[in-house]
Amino acid sequence: MPDETLTYQSAGVDIDEAQRALRKVIGGIQSTHGPNVVGGIGGFGGLFRADFGEFKQPVLVSSIDGVGTKSKLAAMIDSFEGLGYDIVNHCVNDILCQGAKPLFFLDYYGTSHLNGMHFEGVLKGIIDACRMTGTALIGGETAEMPGVYHDEEMDIVGTVIGVVDFEKKLPRGKMKAGDAVIGLGSDGLHTNGYSLARRALFDMAGYSVRDVVPGLSTTIGDELLRPHRCYLNSVYPLLQEFDEIYAVAHITGGGLFDNIPRVVPSDRRLIIDRRAVTAPHNLK
Amino acid sequence: MPDETLTYQSAGVDIDEAQRALRKVIGGIQSTHGPNVVGGIGGFGGLFRADFGEFKQPVLVSSIDGVGTKSKLAAMIDSFEGLGYDIVNHCVNDILCQGAKPLFFLDYYGTSHLNGMHFEGVLKGIIDACRMTGTALIGGETAEMPGVYHDEEMDIVGTVIGVVDFEKKLPRGKMKAGDAVIGLGSDGLHTNGYSLARRALFDMAGYSVRDVVPGLSTTIGDELLRPHRCYLNSVYPLLQEFDEIYAVAHITGGGLFDNIPRVVPSDRRLIIDRRAVTAPHNLK
Repeated sequence: MPDETLTYQSAGVDIDEAQRALRKVIGGIQSTHGPNVVGGIGGFGGLFRADFGEFKQPVLVSSIDGVGTKSKLAAMIDSFEGLGYDIVNHCVNDILCQGAKPLFFLDYYGTSHLNGMHFEGVLKGIIDACRMTGTALIGGETAEMPGVYHDEEMDIVGTVIGVVDFEKKLPRGKMKAGDAVIGLGSDGLHTNGYSLARRALFDMAGYSVRDVVPGLSTTIGDELLRPHRCYLNSVYPLLQEFDEIYAVAHITGGGLFDNIPRVVPSDRRLIIDRRAVTAPHNLK
Repeated sequence: MPDETLTYQSAGVDIDEAQRALRKVIGGIQSTHGPNVVGGIGGFGGLFRADFGEFKQPVLVSSIDGVGTKSKLAAMIDSFEGLGYDIVNHCVNDILCQGAKPLFFLDYYGTSHLNGMHFEGVLKGIIDACRMTGTALIGGETAEMPGVYHDEEMDIVGTVIGVVDFEKKLPRGKMKAGDAVIGLGSDGLHTNGYSLARRALFDMAGYSVRDVVPGLSTTIGDELLRPHRCYLNSVYPLLQEFDEIYAVAHITGGGLFDNIPRVVPSDRRLIIDRRAVTAPHNLK
């Protein structure tokens, strides 16, 4: 056996760096905690009071997701905060499709070697997005996995848990002929299709992240990196006010084709007239 | 632009393979669903009734974690089912340290290119471990991220949500001089330290997964791959019976040194006499 001191660090895992990075964001994490969060940070589990006073028959709604290869775009532009918004907003939008408002969130940050600056950026975005949606960040994990992730690459995963009253949960399946479909514009690609987009724009068309193409008001990199829009504040109040909203779909991987059938009864069909669709505000 | 049909698949992402793999395990997933699971599979969120009749002041306890580079060992031996047990049991043990029993679980499977056989193996393990711990598998996500993960590599992440009564939550902080520490033997490395172990055993000592060394009753590979032990059934009934159990710690990354202080008040110290510690049953 060679004469080498074997430590976590020499095996490519720096536990102390993770602790240092975490200490810098602890104040931000605590700022997301409302009165239902029990205990502090550092326990084996995050604690949240199951106190849903205003709900007659509370149902917990949860979703787990990742940001996909959008993290590669973030690395190309060296801007990581948006990925934090992405993961929170993606998860919050998912449970909104069941009629739920978010209660708490947990994040996972897997990478080859932890870069404290990148981690801090992502966590800052997660914290801000949690504050904007009234979501408590009550758990998280970092993992250094040399040999699993390519150098400098990361995966960011999140789980949100929310609540909906049994009677208000979506979809309700009352759709009938003549009902309208309302589309809310996205703020870009959000968190799906980045392997495809990178292949089309960079590998095939030869663009760089700094290029500006006709129709875009910013660079391709900034356009692609714009954070996932959160629909909570646009949609949740309407769900409380109008019982006539029968279903909500989050158009993510698989697009309209795969996501709409998830909320439309199999004996109904939904027609979208392309002429009725206008381009999002950021496209001229 | 070259003459090439650009599809998700040509960009390295096979949505259909993920759908095919999922269809094979849907029956198993449903088998974990008790009466509190609302609705089927395929919605945007997993639904679980917040019906905690027997708890006076229910507190939700959650944890997110990954299996680390144990996945590399699984690939070396081509045996993936154990990783499913690992991720469920790791998470369940974590919330047990707060006194909680598990309610439901969500999994995330990130990889370079989805291998249906590997995915099915991992999911089978997750399903079995969920059944053994009374945990409903109500959500999951797969992500293909070529360029982020090394070829054939994967990361497996899970989130568990459990419940504890406010009065029964741990730690209770009543520890006093003279209290005893009881250690429960692990079934091996569980899910931490695999980068270090691979470096020590394979890179430095030159062993292979098929080697048998003195003191082990099996090969190094099988020893390292033994699934994470679940302490739920050993510990949870005792927590219900004895109020004198003040704290429980799950000895994971960072070992005794980092994990015991998470549950011991800062003005107390805990002494473990190495002579009182016997080797686990699987070591001769």
